[in-house]
Amino acid sequence: MAVQLDPIGILNTCFKEKFGIPRQPNLVPHARATLEFYPQFAREDTVRELEHFSHIWLIFLFHKNIKGTQKTWSPMVRPPRLGGNKKVGVFASRSPFRPTPLGLSCVVLDRIEMSDKGPILHLSGVDILDQTPVLDIKPYIPYSDSLPQARDGFAQGKPPIRLAVEFSTTADTQIKEKEKQFSDIRAIIIGMLENDPRPAYSTDNDGKRIFGIRIFDVDVKWRVKKNIAKVLCLSGGGL
Amino acid sequence: MAVQLDPIGILNTCFKEKFGIPRQPNLVPHARATLEFYPQFAREDTVRELEHFSHIWLIFLFHKNIKGTQKTWSPMVRPPRLGGNKKVGVFASRSPFRPTPLGLSCVVLDRIEMSDKGPILHLSGVDILDQTPVLDIKPYIPYSDSLPQARDGFAQGKPPIRLAVEFSTTADTQIKEKEKQFSDIRAIIIGMLENDPRPAYSTDNDGKRIFGIRIFDVDVKWRVKKNIAKVLCLSGGGL
Repeated sequence: MAVQLDPIGILNTCFKEKFGIPRQPNLVPHARATLEFYPQFAREDTVRELEHFSHIWLIFLFHKNIKGTQKTWSPMVRPPRLGGNKKVGVFASRSPFRPTPLGLSCVVLDRIEMSDKGPILHLSGVDILDQTPVLDIKPYIPYSDSLPQARDGFAQGKPPIRLAVEFSTTADTQIKEKEKQFSDIRAIIIGMLENDPRPAYSTDNDGKRIFGIRIFDVDVKWRVKKNIAKVLCLSGGGL
Repeated sequence: MAVQLDPIGILNTCFKEKFGIPRQPNLVPHARATLEFYPQFAREDTVRELEHFSHIWLIFLFHKNIKGTQKTWSPMVRPPRLGGNKKVGVFASRSPFRPTPLGLSCVVLDRIEMSDKGPILHLSGVDILDQTPVLDIKPYIPYSDSLPQARDGFAQGKPPIRLAVEFSTTADTQIKEKEKQFSDIRAIIIGMLENDPRPAYSTDNDGKRIFGIRIFDVDVKWRVKKNIAKVLCLSGGGL
């Protein structure tokens, strides 16, 4: 019954590791990506008229959660929105650890670049790991895809901002330097941290633990004290 | 680069052949389906709390469009919404003939039945062929999936009702008989025909051509005259 599918392209994003990636698309609008098609699909014809759509669906592989024949899913998971204490069925969640490792995200289509290697889609609001293989893209069609009246089990609307974000003098100086290369880096860091990427069962709020997230070519060190995420410093990336 | 994926279950729907299937989900609300899980996924735990969601995504295979190594897609397609005259890129369309034969539909989750063979999902508003393998299901989360403000290239809202639907005396009697078995059969036939399933480039409007659609266990014969679809008769299914 198994089916073999070929990815059509690959995503380049600023998210270099799983920890810290926004939990849904469009939570961090500045998180940009490019989608490059593999040679057999990299032709202008395949995306003709796509520019008239503001949003597209990406069906992609959770490629880091495929481990040969090893089982990478459990029948029940702990969604962060429920505080990490309550378990729900894996099919009642958008967990990346699923029987079939498929992801589904609606992202903003900013523009289509026609390059020597074929069309490149410029996207934003992504919540996807760098180098993720994409299986399909589809235009977002509001009349069939947008159901604002749908009843939402436990997610209950956009998650509230959980943390205020501050920068140390060192981090601030370093970010100003990196902004020359990645103009949105500050907005992305703020977006990632204010949604609190820590496991929901984490109770650390006294600043003792230092966390790291890796975006673009830098490691960002931060801690949480009294619901304020403070960025301490950046490292790597020529800093 | 190819990936092998296992379907998690199979759909039982009233649509026995491709012709006539609604072109998007929820166009024919009475079109019901059941989703049965394959044994390894058929356990109550995997769907726990799913009942709190009114809608779910189905990621499924266009299994009739997989023909071994044979290419079943073209870089450009003719969407019915553009009258069948204009071509757009396959990735700017929801055409079932795509490089990766994946379908994506949001359907209504009516209820979850706990059976001896595991949970059975009762769905409606489906636009999917009978016996379609399902690769994944995900809860519909309005805050990330519902984007009423999204710009819609050429689909431009729900398609207008194209045809009035009438029944011959024969067809009417036959449908009353079949309603004992399939209570929604009349509503489904009306839904399928009023959206005009004929190829968009069909100009037949003089009633000369007789069309057939197959739903449940019957063949439905109909013709179009002056924008009225008239159901002539049903056959099969013990009639």
